[in-house]
Amino acid sequence: MQDFTVNPWEVKGKVDYDKLIQQFGTQPITDELRERIRKDAGELHVMLRRKVFFSHRDLESVLKDYEEGKGFFLYTGRAPSLGMHIGHLIPFIFTKWLQERFKVNLYIEITDDEKFMRNPDYSLEDTRKWAYDNILDIIAVGFDPDRTFIFQDTEYIRNMYPLATKVAKKMTFSEVKATFGLDFSSNIGIIFYPALQIVPTMFEKKRCLIPAGIDQDPYWRLQRDIAESLGYFKASQIHSKFLPPLTGIEGKMSSSSPDSAIYLVDDKETVRRKVMKYAFSGGQPTVELHRKLGGNTEIDVPFQWLYYFFEEDDKRIEEIKEEYSSGKLLTGELKQILVDKLNSFLERHRENRERAKELVKDFKYEGKLAKAMWEKVHE
Amino acid sequence: MQDFTVNPWEVKGKVDYDKLIQQFGTQPITDELRERIRKDAGELHVMLRRKVFFSHRDLESVLKDYEEGKGFFLYTGRAPSLGMHIGHLIPFIFTKWLQERFKVNLYIEITDDEKFMRNPDYSLEDTRKWAYDNILDIIAVGFDPDRTFIFQDTEYIRNMYPLATKVAKKMTFSEVKATFGLDFSSNIGIIFYPALQIVPTMFEKKRCLIPAGIDQDPYWRLQRDIAESLGYFKASQIHSKFLPPLTGIEGKMSSSSPDSAIYLVDDKETVRRKVMKYAFSGGQPTVELHRKLGGNTEIDVPFQWLYYFFEEDDKRIEEIKEEYSSGKLLTGELKQILVDKLNSFLERHRENRERAKELVKDFKYEGKLAKAMWEKVHE
Repeated sequence: MQDFTVNPWEVKGKVDYDKLIQQFGTQPITDELRERIRKDAGELHVMLRRKVFFSHRDLESVLKDYEEGKGFFLYTGRAPSLGMHIGHLIPFIFTKWLQERFKVNLYIEITDDEKFMRNPDYSLEDTRKWAYDNILDIIAVGFDPDRTFIFQDTEYIRNMYPLATKVAKKMTFSEVKATFGLDFSSNIGIIFYPALQIVPTMFEKKRCLIPAGIDQDPYWRLQRDIAESLGYFKASQIHSKFLPPLTGIEGKMSSSSPDSAIYLVDDKETVRRKVMKYAFSGGQPTVELHRKLGGNTEIDVPFQWLYYFFEEDDKRIEEIKEEYSSGKLLTGELKQILVDKLNSFLERHRENRERAKELVKDFKYEGKLAKAMWEKVHE
Repeated sequence: MQDFTVNPWEVKGKVDYDKLIQQFGTQPITDELRERIRKDAGELHVMLRRKVFFSHRDLESVLKDYEEGKGFFLYTGRAPSLGMHIGHLIPFIFTKWLQERFKVNLYIEITDDEKFMRNPDYSLEDTRKWAYDNILDIIAVGFDPDRTFIFQDTEYIRNMYPLATKVAKKMTFSEVKATFGLDFSSNIGIIFYPALQIVPTMFEKKRCLIPAGIDQDPYWRLQRDIAESLGYFKASQIHSKFLPPLTGIEGKMSSSSPDSAIYLVDDKETVRRKVMKYAFSGGQPTVELHRKLGGNTEIDVPFQWLYYFFEEDDKRIEEIKEEYSSGKLLTGELKQILVDKLNSFLERHRENRERAKELVKDFKYEGKLAKAMWEKVHE
């Protein structure tokens, strides 16, 4: 009996990640592989040390190509939304580290078309406005403007379409419908969209590495079925676990329940209030009991958030764990640590976001990679 | 009992065009409407006089808009093929007349994408090569380079795609599949394509008139269902009958049986040989019988071709009809009249085609209309 569900539209229950690796047929990131990354990258990102990124497909081949000087490239994307939350930023933060350590090109697809065609309530004008807004948050993460190309489907389509017709010709409605949750009543735009999601994996004749939540894996199986017949590589992937929602350790942070997420625009007071009020605690009901029995870090969301990313110092996170488990650190105190970390992260993010406004044109059109990409038609 | 079939993929049997008007629910071009066209255009094209163009949708509204100074525009297209035959040119010749008389813009879509995605055997490189070749034949018809925009889907997609997503969002797989002959095994590119066929009907906020064979009518019913909800006009149409194949009065000229068609590249001797050998005759088996009984112009393909288009002189075609019916004109003589007409038409066409090479850049990119269209994104 299975007590969790993971697919591209839904993450439910307490996910057993070892089981998921078996189910999806992906590979675990073993200690050995982790060491190889450390050697190649010169260090290990906190999300690798803590096994937030825990699974992969063909990552060894990517590292081999890197080690042999053949190189690789990174690809990720974003379906624009009204506002991004902390969870949305996780893969970008990790991707930025990969780019920095491996000095590789990164392509970021902004799917303003898909978001519009998927949702009856949104206009194309909405999703393009959100695209601009989300791009600022993405740029704020700190990518290399000469090695990063951020493109919106509705703008870059001309350069992608010839190759998209070749990709599309290899995928029948039957093949895409299950993976993308389509049926007879789906509109014909959203049926075509999978081709546009696959094209960027073929932007270079090198291996493409996609960092993403493991729930996205099924999308790339289609790509892996057809890539080689078109003369490209099967997409490699590195998969993350899900940052738990504030309100409990199960599922995945979601925009549809605002109290469960910290938004990038949340001000200091909102962050404090949300964490204090909604963050699910592994602590005991009273101070007395807590001092006596200690908290449970396994189910404590503030601890998990610190562990996933917000407390990067390995020694310090161990201290926190010990002090909380032993009852020395109270729930309110642990929450305050997270509040401070979140607020200083968000403050820095918002400063970067302000500066990002000047950089949009570089990432989209005028940076070294962007410029080269606009001159290139993918066929 | 129905002894003919007409749909976008097949024309079979001897078409009863009056019945077809009822079946498709289109309107006949009445004497009254024809007179109105004559008044507006200053003359009547031979294909209108001879009722080759015989049916329409909303043509009155187009003429009303023209008469009131609101104007309209023309739209037609071509799925590129290895070589065009005479039948392919008929709608272009008529469209050229419409443009000349009404001084309106004309958009010609070259569906290199659709042709490629529809046919397992073709590469995109094939269909784009044919696109260039077919464009020469189209330009040779003599369109106004400042009022005509010829565009290939794979090139102009960026300017069409935002509006295409809006069109696509309004059409489900269920709705397009019957009309376009799609099913579960259709590829996802060809499923999306109907959106790209509809977008050009919305290139201007004026009525769009589409001259085409009546077999194409079903494609535009989808457009008529959704156009107004997007703030555009339902597409108007003017429908032609089918130029019969050389080999018999039934069906439609087809590239799949080369003997039944005269290709634009066929040299004088090939034309003579094909007409003499394959053209289906309404004459009698022997000269003696023919002199006595006369020929049947109703089923005689050489006569029908002369009547459709190649003998524009109304007095002369009546003479030929009478002489053939009375037995004065023999089958071989009638065929020779057609051979001479075809060869002089093709000679002129090929001269124009040579000159067309210099004009491609104007029709596609640099002409007055083309230039304006490249600066415009349809949203």
